[in-house]
Amino acid sequence: MSLIIQKFGGTSLANIECMQAVTDIILKAKNAGHDVVVVVSAMHGETDRLILLSKQITEIPDSREYDALVSTGECVSAALLSLLLQKKGFLACSLTGQQAEIKTIGAHQRAEIHDITGNKLRELLFKGVIPVVTGFQGMNEMNEVTTLARGGSDLTAIAIAAALKADECDIYTDVEGIFTSDPRVVTQAKLLDKITYAEMLALASLGAKVMQKKAVEYAKANRIKIRVLSSFKSGTGTLISDDENVKKPLVSGVAFERRQSKLSILGIPKKTETVNFILNVMQTLNFEVDMTMQHFSAQDETIDFSFTVHLDDYPVAFDFTNKLAKNISAREVVSDKTVAKLSVVGLGMESHAGFSSKIFQTLNAEGIHIYSISSSEAKISTVIDAKHMEFGARLLHKAFDLEC
Amino acid sequence: MSLIIQKFGGTSLANIECMQAVTDIILKAKNAGHDVVVVVSAMHGETDRLILLSKQITEIPDSREYDALVSTGECVSAALLSLLLQKKGFLACSLTGQQAEIKTIGAHQRAEIHDITGNKLRELLFKGVIPVVTGFQGMNEMNEVTTLARGGSDLTAIAIAAALKADECDIYTDVEGIFTSDPRVVTQAKLLDKITYAEMLALASLGAKVMQKKAVEYAKANRIKIRVLSSFKSGTGTLISDDENVKKPLVSGVAFERRQSKLSILGIPKKTETVNFILNVMQTLNFEVDMTMQHFSAQDETIDFSFTVHLDDYPVAFDFTNKLAKNISAREVVSDKTVAKLSVVGLGMESHAGFSSKIFQTLNAEGIHIYSISSSEAKISTVIDAKHMEFGARLLHKAFDLEC
Repeated sequence: MSLIIQKFGGTSLANIECMQAVTDIILKAKNAGHDVVVVVSAMHGETDRLILLSKQITEIPDSREYDALVSTGECVSAALLSLLLQKKGFLACSLTGQQAEIKTIGAHQRAEIHDITGNKLRELLFKGVIPVVTGFQGMNEMNEVTTLARGGSDLTAIAIAAALKADECDIYTDVEGIFTSDPRVVTQAKLLDKITYAEMLALASLGAKVMQKKAVEYAKANRIKIRVLSSFKSGTGTLISDDENVKKPLVSGVAFERRQSKLSILGIPKKTETVNFILNVMQTLNFEVDMTMQHFSAQDETIDFSFTVHLDDYPVAFDFTNKLAKNISAREVVSDKTVAKLSVVGLGMESHAGFSSKIFQTLNAEGIHIYSISSSEAKISTVIDAKHMEFGARLLHKAFDLEC
Repeated sequence: MSLIIQKFGGTSLANIECMQAVTDIILKAKNAGHDVVVVVSAMHGETDRLILLSKQITEIPDSREYDALVSTGECVSAALLSLLLQKKGFLACSLTGQQAEIKTIGAHQRAEIHDITGNKLRELLFKGVIPVVTGFQGMNEMNEVTTLARGGSDLTAIAIAAALKADECDIYTDVEGIFTSDPRVVTQAKLLDKITYAEMLALASLGAKVMQKKAVEYAKANRIKIRVLSSFKSGTGTLISDDENVKKPLVSGVAFERRQSKLSILGIPKKTETVNFILNVMQTLNFEVDMTMQHFSAQDETIDFSFTVHLDDYPVAFDFTNKLAKNISAREVVSDKTVAKLSVVGLGMESHAGFSSKIFQTLNAEGIHIYSISSSEAKISTVIDAKHMEFGARLLHKAFDLEC
């Protein structure tokens, strides 16, 4: 007998009919003799409905009240799912973050899970009850409801898995698992049986929306096996773990992210600390600055510095970059709002120079210009024109033999 | 400076626009120098939406989960109203029943308020914050969300008024106050400035839906002044208190209740305890049995026993009455599903025989037959054919000089 945490996303709980299917999944695990703790998101559309109500009042709502408001979505789905489980003759009980003893610290709207005693959950499991816990929320030491960042229900599930030393944490969603690329764009994309935390982290930070990055990091740190699978189609999904024994291809997928913008500060007088200063200020402003590149011109002893930010952050970043350029006596700022990020994900890529040149060759052969390229442990990313993103993804997917 | 509790019903909070009007009412009291604690119902339609979701699963949901589900409605309106108050530049903070320290005992769905320490509320008031408390709910000693009976937000407001020794509890709704009769039926009905608890209780139990009976009882026991008024129209509404000094008419209103049914057990062999037995069993079944009447026939030494129940309870009551009649060897059961209750409300009516005869004369003169009549401290009620209800109400309203 194992202890399994099962987390269901909003699309899996979109209506009572979908919840019926979820009930069957839970009961299958129970009937196989496992203990199960369920973690739920809000019903699909519910969080957006609540946010829309608050936006009718103010664009920037008070964080405490925002949390009090949107956290109700998960309370509704937890209660409904408990009723469904009871109807099938099982003991079940909904728990809010507070009732499940999920203690948080930090700011509202992006609280961190500080501690889960697990006492209440263990007590219910001991009595044969299926606890149905609201994801995405907890209670701080002021007895206030706090929410984690959006998508935080994954994190709730993994943190509960860690607290209870669960054998596995199953993340049910509307896709069958992790694919080598987005099947809507790369029709030849294939489902991966297994993937490592490092690769999953690379994918998560590269626009593959299946799992929240923080949740994967938490799982990695606590060595929680995650399985991503669909609540609509049967299958064993993708197991995310540290299991390096399995013989696997070096390259595991192609990821891409639209809605990027590129900003370049040209002609920065050479001072060693300037670029670091820019990056520090950007981080303070809470931008995710990525794909940084600098070029030193020996001719006039100036530096050109480029980076990408998400298009949503572009207006503020552009404004800030112009002010900064003036301050540091740079020549000019140029920007491009029509770029995309295209990446190849896999283990040990950084140490293989061959990968970068293969990417260059593949894209250049079809006339796709690479503005910048950067590599890390588990990925090589490029910045290209947004219009070439899908085509480039299919080219790389084929070039690295990922097709099914 | 006074402390005022302001409670707003679902129609007053139906959408953000309505909530704006509510905000203005609260801020008017604040600007007049008063301390204010706000109690809110769920937005109009929200509780029904949640109940409908649970009904898609089961007709009789588990009470604990039902409470967890429907209690979210008030959390949403409390957070939204707090955001609106903040937008106007005031400090405000939503509180769930648990956060407001509203401790309950008793069964889910019909919990009783056991204790409100008031510490958290006093702390917030001291800091100049407007607490916005979710009505209708509290937390039991098991740390579970419990709801009071439907309409329990009135009770929450009055219990908070009692705990904080507030000067007044204002119940804002979609009508301007308490009228001498339902203005939709009796166009000449007029708004009452004042009314006593006893009269309000008589009205509340006679189908005037403005306030929940239990809430009025709680206010009477704790001598909390209630004011019923509209959040849509300005005015001073109706003050409900014990103030007997005010010279006022003896008769304060005409109330009526449709959807009644009459059941009669005919030819019950005379035994003194039989009728009591019937009433006891009915109470066990949780029917509100009203307007009981018995008639002894000296000729054959049998009793005829009649009573009314709400039409919703009729099917079960009819079934039960037939079984019972057989058991006690009664001759037959006859029933009528098209009756209504029509009542005159006022203080000290019972001791004035003249009132009953005036009711008889007024209705009989227009050919309206009275099936039964009963009187208590603050009312005289009759059972008549439902089709005559509105006409009878207008006749009595005129006969007792209540017109404006």
